[in-house]
Amino acid sequence: MSGPVRATPKETVLRSASREVVIGHGRRFCLIGERINPTGRRIFQEQLRSGDLSAIERDVKAQVEGGADVLDINMGVPLTDEADLLERAIRMVQGLTDLPVCIDSSVVEALEAGLAAYEGRALVNSVTAEDERLAQVLPLVKKYDAAVIALPNDADEIPMEADKRLVLTGKIIDVATKEYGIDAADIVIDPLAMPIGADTSMVTTTLETMQRVRDEFGVNMTCGASNVSFGMPARHTLGAAYLPIAMYAGLTSAIMDARTPQIVDAVKAADLLLNHDEWGMAWIAAHRARQAEAV
Amino acid sequence: MSGPVRATPKETVLRSASREVVIGHGRRFCLIGERINPTGRRIFQEQLRSGDLSAIERDVKAQVEGGADVLDINMGVPLTDEADLLERAIRMVQGLTDLPVCIDSSVVEALEAGLAAYEGRALVNSVTAEDERLAQVLPLVKKYDAAVIALPNDADEIPMEADKRLVLTGKIIDVATKEYGIDAADIVIDPLAMPIGADTSMVTTTLETMQRVRDEFGVNMTCGASNVSFGMPARHTLGAAYLPIAMYAGLTSAIMDARTPQIVDAVKAADLLLNHDEWGMAWIAAHRARQAEAV
Repeated sequence: MSGPVRATPKETVLRSASREVVIGHGRRFCLIGERINPTGRRIFQEQLRSGDLSAIERDVKAQVEGGADVLDINMGVPLTDEADLLERAIRMVQGLTDLPVCIDSSVVEALEAGLAAYEGRALVNSVTAEDERLAQVLPLVKKYDAAVIALPNDADEIPMEADKRLVLTGKIIDVATKEYGIDAADIVIDPLAMPIGADTSMVTTTLETMQRVRDEFGVNMTCGASNVSFGMPARHTLGAAYLPIAMYAGLTSAIMDARTPQIVDAVKAADLLLNHDEWGMAWIAAHRARQAEAV
Repeated sequence: MSGPVRATPKETVLRSASREVVIGHGRRFCLIGERINPTGRRIFQEQLRSGDLSAIERDVKAQVEGGADVLDINMGVPLTDEADLLERAIRMVQGLTDLPVCIDSSVVEALEAGLAAYEGRALVNSVTAEDERLAQVLPLVKKYDAAVIALPNDADEIPMEADKRLVLTGKIIDVATKEYGIDAADIVIDPLAMPIGADTSMVTTTLETMQRVRDEFGVNMTCGASNVSFGMPARHTLGAAYLPIAMYAGLTSAIMDARTPQIVDAVKAADLLLNHDEWGMAWIAAHRARQAEAV
């Protein structure tokens, strides 16, 4: 195909003690199960505050059964020792599943506690393009040989134009590779999926950002899949149309609730359509498994 | 955005006696309802053979209710006077709905009879890049001031590479505009959506064709939406993932059965996501209408 030279597509390798997951362009989409998170869940918050982590078991099971490839673990409960909670949650999850984890916190000490407890190669969620955040998070990513989700926004408001997001993506990759010796393959860019309800041109800006990040940097990308439909009716239908388009534009993973079959099925369909599922083996096998269940 | 200069997007205007439908890039996707067609329907074929066209009424109603913008009318029954049948069907459909029509036949005489009977600006389905077919069909398109679906394949087998499809698209547009004085806006290219079951790289070739046809020629495109999933399980789920991707790649209409809500909803969702549904008015209105029905 004609056009400018594309950057070589990069692969992000995540590992648990016994399992490897590779995120990459041209590979099957990586579902990062997002449910192990107390945000907006009052009862779960109370349990965690009292030191009861047992609900995690059910959440892990549901995400694994729904088809998650990686599990996002967030223990952000106000007025708790988040580092201690996250460390315990990480240890617990390692006993429940062999899926790699994404360690999710805005508290740097909690990220470090999680990384120290994890036996594998985790994804860190997340860092921004702000100098202070980069200086706090990137040394941990290097020290623990992890990968990191990076948001191309700085101290100003979230950039509404693709150009600015591309500049900040370049800055993050530059700092990570040159100042901290982190491989660009270990930077997973979040192109900042904004709610379409706020402005119906938001998604096209995000899709343009995805195409350009893929073409110019070749790095992997992820996003919070449900953000786009926030505030709109029929959110699952929007999510099921959004992810296939985003995958075509270059998105290689998403943080999403794997318990939503409509959206998971759309991702698997797009994997087949975009030639990431050779011979349609996974698609056909999933269909046969469902038929067998139904009998 | 950087990159090569894009061709100006073109608009295809179709009209019934009282209603206009515009197909265009940046507009809401055009659903061409495909069910008014006896292919594979034995009872309907027998009815038509005996001169009974009454089943058309039900099919028109179902496609209109499903959200079709244009109706494809095909009367291809072996061993019948297809020209006479198509002419009668066109007259009948004009009495049932104000949606514009797509006159669908491989028989040139039938196309002419349909065009002569139609009071409006129809879409002709279809012409190929073969010299003989161009010489038969394009004079009719010009004479009756119609638009035409054109398939970029010639007498050889269907080209499996985007390059060849682009060359043949260029040839068709060249012949139509220079030899017959047809506006390029009235050529709707079918980028040849092939079944993914035959080869899992088929869809990416078709998507590449769509992007390049849009960028190099700016013309509208259509395809048989169900071809892609032929022979695969869970066809509606594949169709619902395929059309949003194809719309992003440049597809502006599809010939499809409007009675499949899963696929129609996916198209409407993609219209919103791709900023063809300002303020999400259509999306929200459709949701409200459904809630009202449910009460």
